[in-house]
Amino acid sequence: MAPALRAAPEFEIQKWLNTDQPCTLEALRGKVVVVYAFQMLCPGCVEHSVPQARKVRALFPAEDVAVLGLHTVFEHHEAMGEIALKAFLHEYRLDFPVGIDEPSGDSLDPVPKTMRRYNLQGTPTTLMIDRQGRLRKQKFGHEQDMVLGAEIMALMREAPEESLGQQAPPEEKTPADTHHCSDESCPL
Amino acid sequence: MAPALRAAPEFEIQKWLNTDQPCTLEALRGKVVVVYAFQMLCPGCVEHSVPQARKVRALFPAEDVAVLGLHTVFEHHEAMGEIALKAFLHEYRLDFPVGIDEPSGDSLDPVPKTMRRYNLQGTPTTLMIDRQGRLRKQKFGHEQDMVLGAEIMALMREAPEESLGQQAPPEEKTPADTHHCSDESCPL
Amino acid sequence: MAPALRAAPEFEIQKWLNTDQPCTLEALRGKVVVVYAFQMLCPGCVEHSVPQARKVRALFPAEDVAVLGLHTVFEHHEAMGEIALKAFLHEYRLDFPVGIDEPSGDSLDPVPKTMRRYNLQGTPTTLMIDRQGRLRKQKFGHEQDMVLGAEIMALMREAPEESLGQQAPPEEKTPADTHHCSDESCPL
Amino acid sequence: MAPALRAAPEFEIQKWLNTDQPCTLEALRGKVVVVYAFQMLCPGCVEHSVPQARKVRALFPAEDVAVLGLHTVFEHHEAMGEIALKAFLHEYRLDFPVGIDEPSGDSLDPVPKTMRRYNLQGTPTTLMIDRQGRLRKQKFGHEQDMVLGAEIMALMREAPEESLGQQAPPEEKTPADTHHCSDESCPL
Repeated sequence: MAPALRAAPEFEIQKWLNTDQPCTLEALRGKVVVVYAFQMLCPGCVEHSVPQARKVRALFPAEDVAVLGLHTVFEHHEAMGEIALKAFLHEYRLDFPVGIDEPSGDSLDPVPKTMRRYNLQGTPTTLMIDRQGRLRKQKFGHEQDMVLGAEIMALMREAPEESLGQQAPPEEKTPADTHHCSDESCPL
Repeated sequence: MAPALRAAPEFEIQKWLNTDQPCTLEALRGKVVVVYAFQMLCPGCVEHSVPQARKVRALFPAEDVAVLGLHTVFEHHEAMGEIALKAFLHEYRLDFPVGIDEPSGDSLDPVPKTMRRYNLQGTPTTLMIDRQGRLRKQKFGHEQDMVLGAEIMALMREAPEESLGQQAPPEEKTPADTHHCSDESCPL
Repeated sequence: MAPALRAAPEFEIQKWLNTDQPCTLEALRGKVVVVYAFQMLCPGCVEHSVPQARKVRALFPAEDVAVLGLHTVFEHHEAMGEIALKAFLHEYRLDFPVGIDEPSGDSLDPVPKTMRRYNLQGTPTTLMIDRQGRLRKQKFGHEQDMVLGAEIMALMREAPEESLGQQAPPEEKTPADTHHCSDESCPL
Repeated sequence: MAPALRAAPEFEIQKWLNTDQPCTLEALRGKVVVVYAFQMLCPGCVEHSVPQARKVRALFPAEDVAVLGLHTVFEHHEAMGEIALKAFLHEYRLDFPVGIDEPSGDSLDPVPKTMRRYNLQGTPTTLMIDRQGRLRKQKFGHEQDMVLGAEIMALMREAPEESLGQQAPPEEKTPADTHHCSDESCPL
């Protein structure tokens, strides 16, 4: 028997941009939620995730699919504060809600709280949460457009209360092999 | 009330390549069928459709989704015969079934029979046929990967006998504006 | 008769990164100098200029061709300070010298001094300076790789003291048409 | 002392297309000649060489730089005859002269004469011949635009009678590792 799907942990956000009200998963229940965890100075995020996120936002109806950014800064904190992020969102014309992940509060721990809670391996990471609030995908690195389109549609077609009995997403096992970002991603 | 969806007309094929038996729509009933109508010397087909078709074949399970090529030659007939097409399929490593559209039989009519029957506007054209054998998409020119992935998944999730009541695909209205192919497509 | 070529005005730099000593044009006399004026949050700079600058650095010998960055911030000043720029250079693996253009000193004038002096229209802008220190190209927006390669080689093949009698580079006339950056460039 | 540069062997051409008169190297003496050896069904040729050749033709003056195609068919001969090639040149809008390499005349030897004479390893191959008719570059596979632009300019700037004393182009050593074409090239 497949293990039960776990509910996606709630985000812990310092501040939301591009929205008047916080985007809790609680409030988004009933929608498919596509989350891009990124850092504004991560080359792979800028090259792949930003255009892909814009495409998802443009192609799927907002009443069915929420697109969120999650700014999970785990390096160069001084370079990627709120002011810098706002300039970035403006220049890259991202207008969906972006949450600034809550810093750990521990000066020795550079990893912010939501990133820790989801055990993200780095940026970019794509999360997909179904209409019932369960985590269905957690992918570190770039995902193909065609795959993502198919997966979003599959979740859209599930009823909000559907009983699934599906497997939990597989554990990601990507080696953290560099001290700084590659062109594709920034490992933790 | 939405108009009833029409059954996709059967293909009229001179010869099938890459397969031992003809791929009739009748025989494929129950699967989603993605058809790439192309010409081997159409630049837009080579640049966009060939890689996209390979991606569809690689990403979706063969028991649910059939991928077919349809070689709809309507110009330069002498340059795109069976021998040339076989070399093309070999070099571009296309291994799904490809049907050679049956010539009109009328020396004054360069448009082959299936192309005429579907009223295709040129190449590349993507067709999508649902599990019940009904035509659900007919798109002249390039389609985005993300859109295509979502649409295939939507049809995969339909039951073979599901009652749809959906609208017929909209009429394509793209002006045939050139005497030869653009980088994107070859209008009829 | 062609107008005499003007000497490239000296840069006015607040601070140099990636180098122990200032890169004055005076000191670079005898080399071809390729300068990328950019802003770290300008999408066109990141997409086009950064990879192109890396390519120029990799392909041409350092004893003949100097490659410099010029960080000409004219908007979002608080987001693109020295700390942020250092993180950017690290993440995008740029290791050639980058000068931070000296701010105007006038709180009402966002345009820094070297940018003003060269009358740059925005970012990215590519400058090329010949072995005699004369400005030979000033191009706002993206330049094709093949053109740039040819132009650099042409200047490399000039003797340091060659008498030229060539025309000054044409005035760039690109309309500043937007309030923020396009995908290609950030007009002033 | 560097070995003397060898004169480029004359082409042996069955038929020239897109030109009224044969393009002998003899007749082109005084110009830089850029030659694209290709096959119309070689994916790497279509993806990389065709656009690059068009760019070279568009960017360099015809009085200094000749651009030629050389159709060196060494496989699928029946699929790439003159009629097919003409259709290809039409659809891909190539309007510079293209010579059909003379078949070997030996039914056991699929390699045509000019290809044999230059000892080409496969397609695409780029040849560059200087103003004095000497072979200066022979590169199997794709060359970067920036490199090619620089090399063409370097040859343009040489006097027709300049004494060079430069090295012959290095021998290409690329393993012929496949039975058919890769996306990049078709090895012999």
